[in-house]
Amino acid sequence: MASTQSTNHCKVFLAGTVAKGLLAEVAGGLSKLDFKPKLVGFLANDDPAAKMYADWSAKTCIENGFDFDLRTVSKVEIEEHILAANTDASVHGIIVYYPIFPQTSGQDKYIQQIVALEKDVEGLSHRYVFNMYQNIRFLDQPTNTLKSILPCTPLAVVKVLEYLQIYNSILPYGNRLFGKTITVINRSEVVGRPLAALLANDGAKVFSIDLDGVQIFTRGEGIKKRHHEVQVQDPSFTIKDCLPVSDVVISGVPGNKFKVDLSLVRDGAVCVNFSSEKNFDSPAVKEKASIYIPAIGKVTIAVLLRNLLRLVQNQSAAKQVEA
Amino acid sequence: MASTQSTNHCKVFLAGTVAKGLLAEVAGGLSKLDFKPKLVGFLANDDPAAKMYADWSAKTCIENGFDFDLRTVSKVEIEEHILAANTDASVHGIIVYYPIFPQTSGQDKYIQQIVALEKDVEGLSHRYVFNMYQNIRFLDQPTNTLKSILPCTPLAVVKVLEYLQIYNSILPYGNRLFGKTITVINRSEVVGRPLAALLANDGAKVFSIDLDGVQIFTRGEGIKKRHHEVQVQDPSFTIKDCLPVSDVVISGVPGNKFKVDLSLVRDGAVCVNFSSEKNFDSPAVKEKASIYIPAIGKVTIAVLLRNLLRLVQNQSAAKQVEA
Repeated sequence: MASTQSTNHCKVFLAGTVAKGLLAEVAGGLSKLDFKPKLVGFLANDDPAAKMYADWSAKTCIENGFDFDLRTVSKVEIEEHILAANTDASVHGIIVYYPIFPQTSGQDKYIQQIVALEKDVEGLSHRYVFNMYQNIRFLDQPTNTLKSILPCTPLAVVKVLEYLQIYNSILPYGNRLFGKTITVINRSEVVGRPLAALLANDGAKVFSIDLDGVQIFTRGEGIKKRHHEVQVQDPSFTIKDCLPVSDVVISGVPGNKFKVDLSLVRDGAVCVNFSSEKNFDSPAVKEKASIYIPAIGKVTIAVLLRNLLRLVQNQSAAKQVEA
Repeated sequence: MASTQSTNHCKVFLAGTVAKGLLAEVAGGLSKLDFKPKLVGFLANDDPAAKMYADWSAKTCIENGFDFDLRTVSKVEIEEHILAANTDASVHGIIVYYPIFPQTSGQDKYIQQIVALEKDVEGLSHRYVFNMYQNIRFLDQPTNTLKSILPCTPLAVVKVLEYLQIYNSILPYGNRLFGKTITVINRSEVVGRPLAALLANDGAKVFSIDLDGVQIFTRGEGIKKRHHEVQVQDPSFTIKDCLPVSDVVISGVPGNKFKVDLSLVRDGAVCVNFSSEKNFDSPAVKEKASIYIPAIGKVTIAVLLRNLLRLVQNQSAAKQVEA
């Protein structure tokens, strides 16, 4: 950076800007209903972050014309409460604020599968997760009236990239990332791995990076495969090989120790942070990137409402089939 | 390519499809005029290709509501005829079909500068060429009412890339190629060099390639420069270094001997041919590219009409200033 020149050409987009369009789309769908969909949230821990997320989702629900009911329950009761909500016709969507049980116990995974498929607003049911990895977009193929639900944070990143026109709408739906190279730093089961899969299923070449090394997610040469496959790289292939060739760099590393090495990032790359910490040093990132997204939280909540609407639409489509 | 699998995901766009939008834009501008703009074409050679281009531009002019007058003149008379058309108020644009004189004489360059600036539909006047290289978009800065004219074929490629959304409209106008890497094979003064400059001025990193080697056109790190600069690469840096990292490969090599080495092209790249010959082997290119444009001729003619309309708009804006 020339010290005499302080302007840069990086465009920063805030999550609220991106969320706006999604919320408008949700409002359009909501206006076609003759009732107010209700989301029930279950809080069974003392985690202040979970409480904050719960309050924030409550606020966004109410503001956007949905009902929200936060139910604070004990750990021992949570299963019964979820089962009751599953069969309560006045409840359209269920969200559970994790973690509840110690991570080592694996009990949270069990709770996730307790939530009824048709009310699982977070898309954590095995069927949804399977469909996502397999690039299956409907629950009722080949009729294709019931949409499969995608997890909120990975889908929020997809919606951000659509908004930024990284998805090229001139290409056929489902292949709109063909030709794009994307690095995703974080390979958690909750966000990073599903995100890498979603992007690769849409045609991108994805470098998925965590402490265990680099994996490449693609649909193969010429995106001939119907869904992504994974190639585990050997340890000599590192983030240093990924960043310089990536059109988009997406990072979600928790804690404040990790920073993306901007000297490796391609001039004019698109940088997206989904960590609660800043994975990209600012203002340095603005000297390199063409577009920078510092956070995606508001998009995630908008996607949560979009998922709730999808569930309601699925529920009514399913009723029509039964009738 | 698997022999059992014949589908590919390359989308082929024909020039006519891209031209359509431009012609609609031109029709919109034309409908605001109370007269029919007239383009005069000068043919002073026996080149069948020039005659074909003349007939083709005549046809497109007439079909799209413009007047066209083809004047076949002798080489010795051409200068006088152009000077007469320059001062004839019924003539709004002038196009000369080159070559007229032997290339070594340089006399065609002289003829190009004879055409009046305000009637130069091809943008070959030195002032227009200077403005293009310097990234100056108006003749009357800072008033900015008179648009500088860009040469038809390079501008046609720009319009193709806009249509294909390679230009990202979410970025500010003038910087919409920031982050894109583009190879242009051909560095002629007529097309390849102005094209490389236009793309770099819009923010791209451009590898400009011809038999003399590779030059890189960019606005520098973070596109901080107001217009492009050129870095001549040493001979060890070749097309082999350019193709694998290019989002877009544009080729315009005359003759049928040159083919782009598709094995070097990045999977999912956008391939554009502006040569009258096929620089990309087909169907092989469709196994590699996400988008393939086999020819751009119809876009070039549409851009010619767009330039003619710009000239008319400039002429009336200039009159208003005088009045």
